[in-house]
Amino acid sequence: MTAPVQRLSLNTKTTERWTLAEAVDGAARAGIPAVGLWRDRVQEAGVDRAAKLVRDAGLRVSSLCRGGFLTGPDPLPDNRRAIDEAATLGTGELVMVVGGMPAGSRDLVGARARVADGIAALVPYAAESGVRLALEPLHPMYVADRAVISTLGQALDLAAPHDAASVGVVVDTFHVWWDPVLGEQIERAGREGRLSSYQVCDWLVPIAADPLLSRGMMGEGHIDFATITREVAATGYLGDIEVEIFNADIWARPGDDVVATMIQRYAELVEPYL
Amino acid sequence: MTAPVQRLSLNTKTTERWTLAEAVDGAARAGIPAVGLWRDRVQEAGVDRAAKLVRDAGLRVSSLCRGGFLTGPDPLPDNRRAIDEAATLGTGELVMVVGGMPAGSRDLVGARARVADGIAALVPYAAESGVRLALEPLHPMYVADRAVISTLGQALDLAAPHDAASVGVVVDTFHVWWDPVLGEQIERAGREGRLSSYQVCDWLVPIAADPLLSRGMMGEGHIDFATITREVAATGYLGDIEVEIFNADIWARPGDDVVATMIQRYAELVEPYL
Repeated sequence: MTAPVQRLSLNTKTTERWTLAEAVDGAARAGIPAVGLWRDRVQEAGVDRAAKLVRDAGLRVSSLCRGGFLTGPDPLPDNRRAIDEAATLGTGELVMVVGGMPAGSRDLVGARARVADGIAALVPYAAESGVRLALEPLHPMYVADRAVISTLGQALDLAAPHDAASVGVVVDTFHVWWDPVLGEQIERAGREGRLSSYQVCDWLVPIAADPLLSRGMMGEGHIDFATITREVAATGYLGDIEVEIFNADIWARPGDDVVATMIQRYAELVEPYL
Repeated sequence: MTAPVQRLSLNTKTTERWTLAEAVDGAARAGIPAVGLWRDRVQEAGVDRAAKLVRDAGLRVSSLCRGGFLTGPDPLPDNRRAIDEAATLGTGELVMVVGGMPAGSRDLVGARARVADGIAALVPYAAESGVRLALEPLHPMYVADRAVISTLGQALDLAAPHDAASVGVVVDTFHVWWDPVLGEQIERAGREGRLSSYQVCDWLVPIAADPLLSRGMMGEGHIDFATITREVAATGYLGDIEVEIFNADIWARPGDDVVATMIQRYAELVEPYL
């Protein structure tokens, strides 16, 4: 490996068909030092075994995805389990997809209030466990069904009542690239010490028929990674850069090929601006 | 007609299969006093004949849709024609869908600058013609391909250098309902005298496979029309309320049925809050 990948992390969603063991092995073989884990792959492997697999391969866990869905019924027990899993896996960042609106609801303001209440209820347990709740603003097209937090500024406002060691925010280019005030909010996230995770993938046109699968490999779409990466770097962010791509075409390709392309695009479009 | 529809406007997109003459007739038969016109239907009929059709039916034109696409090649001639058409049709509001990013471009900031330049170039002609350029923020899911203006605040910033009689903004619930600062930006639009048009339709889940066709009849989705309508009314807005729905299922239904449902939902979900 000659590409500088010291801060690159393979999110298990990018190589969706790989088991956790395969993803860990694939990352290690490619010289990638970190993995971002989804709970489905972790639970298939078993949490303790997953932690051992990653440790034995000499990798670090950049984040665990995901807790959240705080607008649904009784969300706290599963979120406490997610906090436990993050701690066991040795990552300090639990990505939170906060949840959408209940079926039939028109109460967006109320849903946001439930999210705020849920975060407040989880903070003590997260703090005790050494895990930060990393609030992820999702693209506004998911506001009804997945996340009533749509902008980085809104995520920072929601985090504000809590200690920066316990509640952070995620910058995922796919979700926030359109935001006309993104630059100032990234700067704010840095100033407030809340930048938990930087995740990169591209925005494709047209949007996929299943909008969840519309994320593209860097370089295939319209996102200016140079500018956003410079803004993230200017905050002093020293964490990993995760590549998390939901895309049926990419999932159909052999994992090793996807990883190789990912490294090449990262080296060309992201790493130079760190 | 017993429902209070004095400010309701049928946008020709809602009854997509109707010709202009059929839409004018359908609105008049249902007691709806206004129509929002798309240029495709106007041009099929011929602009002068379209103006006469609407006038003879005793209707007003709430807006003409659309000018814009200012990020493409040579956009000014067609926009001047759109301004002429609006003037001929007797509407003071030309809805502007500002345009997306050129194929392969990653320069969102540059595209926005081109929009600002295009608006500035059109303002004198619009002012002379008594037509206002009504900037429509589109949902952020269209930022790459249709409109690099994604929020009401951003549209108001773009309008700010120009006289409020020449550059206004559109509030379309589908595009802006998710915005956590929507209420304050509607208030600002009113304060700055720029509220050109209020358009209503609902947000469906899941998003349609063709995201352009994901707009729903009021009451079918997650939008809180009571709150947004109250905010619009509080600005002193006295214009029409257009119903503009792109939806394959609605387009497949007989136009008169769609109009009847539209009146009923408007009377129940929108009109009481004006």
